[in-house]
Amino acid sequence: MATINDVAEKAGVSVTTVSRVLNNRGYISEKTRRKVYETMEELHYQPNEIARSLLRKQSNLIGLIVPNVSHPFFGEFTDVVEHYAYEYGYKLLLCHSQLDPNKEREYIGMMKRHRVDGIIMGSHTLEVDEYRELNYPIVTVDRRIHQFPYVASDNLQGGRLAAQMLIGKGCRRIAHICGNRSLDMLANLRTTGFKEEIGLAGMESIILETNMDVFNQDEYRRIVSDLFTEYPDVDGVFTTSDIMASYVIKHCTGSGRRIPEDVRIVGYDDVAAAAWISPGITTIKQPLPAMGKRAVELIHKQINGETIEQANIFPVELIIRETT
Amino acid sequence: MATINDVAEKAGVSVTTVSRVLNNRGYISEKTRRKVYETMEELHYQPNEIARSLLRKQSNLIGLIVPNVSHPFFGEFTDVVEHYAYEYGYKLLLCHSQLDPNKEREYIGMMKRHRVDGIIMGSHTLEVDEYRELNYPIVTVDRRIHQFPYVASDNLQGGRLAAQMLIGKGCRRIAHICGNRSLDMLANLRTTGFKEEIGLAGMESIILETNMDVFNQDEYRRIVSDLFTEYPDVDGVFTTSDIMASYVIKHCTGSGRRIPEDVRIVGYDDVAAAAWISPGITTIKQPLPAMGKRAVELIHKQINGETIEQANIFPVELIIRETT
Repeated sequence: MATINDVAEKAGVSVTTVSRVLNNRGYISEKTRRKVYETMEELHYQPNEIARSLLRKQSNLIGLIVPNVSHPFFGEFTDVVEHYAYEYGYKLLLCHSQLDPNKEREYIGMMKRHRVDGIIMGSHTLEVDEYRELNYPIVTVDRRIHQFPYVASDNLQGGRLAAQMLIGKGCRRIAHICGNRSLDMLANLRTTGFKEEIGLAGMESIILETNMDVFNQDEYRRIVSDLFTEYPDVDGVFTTSDIMASYVIKHCTGSGRRIPEDVRIVGYDDVAAAAWISPGITTIKQPLPAMGKRAVELIHKQINGETIEQANIFPVELIIRETT
Repeated sequence: MATINDVAEKAGVSVTTVSRVLNNRGYISEKTRRKVYETMEELHYQPNEIARSLLRKQSNLIGLIVPNVSHPFFGEFTDVVEHYAYEYGYKLLLCHSQLDPNKEREYIGMMKRHRVDGIIMGSHTLEVDEYRELNYPIVTVDRRIHQFPYVASDNLQGGRLAAQMLIGKGCRRIAHICGNRSLDMLANLRTTGFKEEIGLAGMESIILETNMDVFNQDEYRRIVSDLFTEYPDVDGVFTTSDIMASYVIKHCTGSGRRIPEDVRIVGYDDVAAAAWISPGITTIKQPLPAMGKRAVELIHKQINGETIEQANIFPVELIIRETT
């Protein structure tokens, strides 16, 4: 592999000149610059980014911690983050926490050692205290911790829209399957908004809690089955993800309940699957492209010392398909 | 942030001693080792992995290039790769090629500059020639290039099993929707196996080609719609992914075709969605956990100069669900 010395020798300039061209520092004539670039190309010279990082004290790496990209929501979020990280010149270090606090803790330590420039936290099992020592550019997803900036959809409004939709369609026994409410997530506001609307309509909410983030198919099946065993007259269900909604669909079609005649369903997220499964899922759309873009921008602005807003809440939208 | 000098001073040892403890080199008494570790903890000292990489000439980074993790197959593959990379002590640099040759080329250049220890190539838009200059530990997925090791499922057998299933169920007009056959992918063998079996049964194959890797919903919808317009008597469909199979399901339920009575469907991959959508998709299961694990092992063994097999082909399995 060609070294910076080889380039300097072949181009007939000093190593300092090559270094200046690479780092865009000091005065270099256009002619010399061109000569150096041509020589680098000729020799297939690749500057060593590790050495450059050390000099610049910047790694151009962003760490992204998510439970797991095989979950459609996090897969689609990661897709957007990767896209904008690339646009801004960052590389993405992908870390799956699997919602295991130990793995999350180890990953944060690893990121510190690798001097990542910033961390996007889409996973939240650690205690709030453990975040205190992180003096990095950080963005959290769907969770408010200290003064860290966060991105989230308007969860409260999402819960309201879902309840209004089901009430408006004449549902009278409406259930809601939500995530683990002991985690301090902004997504819990979906449940708040839902309960408010159900209460205003003079009905009682049926709330089932689950550890939604864990992509455990058997667990999903069991919860849905329990719901209809305990409340056989349920005629409307609002789930906190589209994947969970698909389990409700599967249970209904398997047990002879017609959708939407007998049971109406509203999901959350609007992942691609909501459109391609049958029947298509009516859902609350989170604007993932805008949220992922903002997450990268918030890291970039922190790195550059720009002022940012802490709360970055994005409007949701009711997408009507065949389950209502 | 504490430096190695701070640690040495506080622990009452030399910087060389701290460095030896960190790099596990030279003789250090157990007592000194413990003292250094305690001091590092006390001062929240984080060794600078960038500097260490430069010394060791090893970055502990593996680059993973996939079209896009929001595609369920690549999301689940990435999940496994991340898991085993972590087990082996590597960090994962995630790169989405979006099947754009320019982006793929740029990413490969970036990986060289960052001195990744190896590259897992799950994306294949570049010309074979452009791989020649990569003298890195490399593993390709579903493609054979030069002498690079590759992982793949037994695509030929997969195509045969799918055809046998549909023939056995009495289908007489069987279509196959495959990927872009101008890309030199081992997945093309699915089509070969399928056509062989259909020929042996004395029938004619209907083959539709598409750029399957692009996750373009409108394109999927159009292809399926065209299939049933051109061949309204099709009673069996083998698709080269489960997501494509879900589009066939959606088209059939929307146009009054019963599944499996009127149209039987076999997918490929066995991604999680194949089980959770309704009806559940009969499919050819690729053993993704074993394939992803092997991909990481193949990188690890190359780094350590161990002997490896070039061909790593994994058996497939027919998973019977409700679409047949």
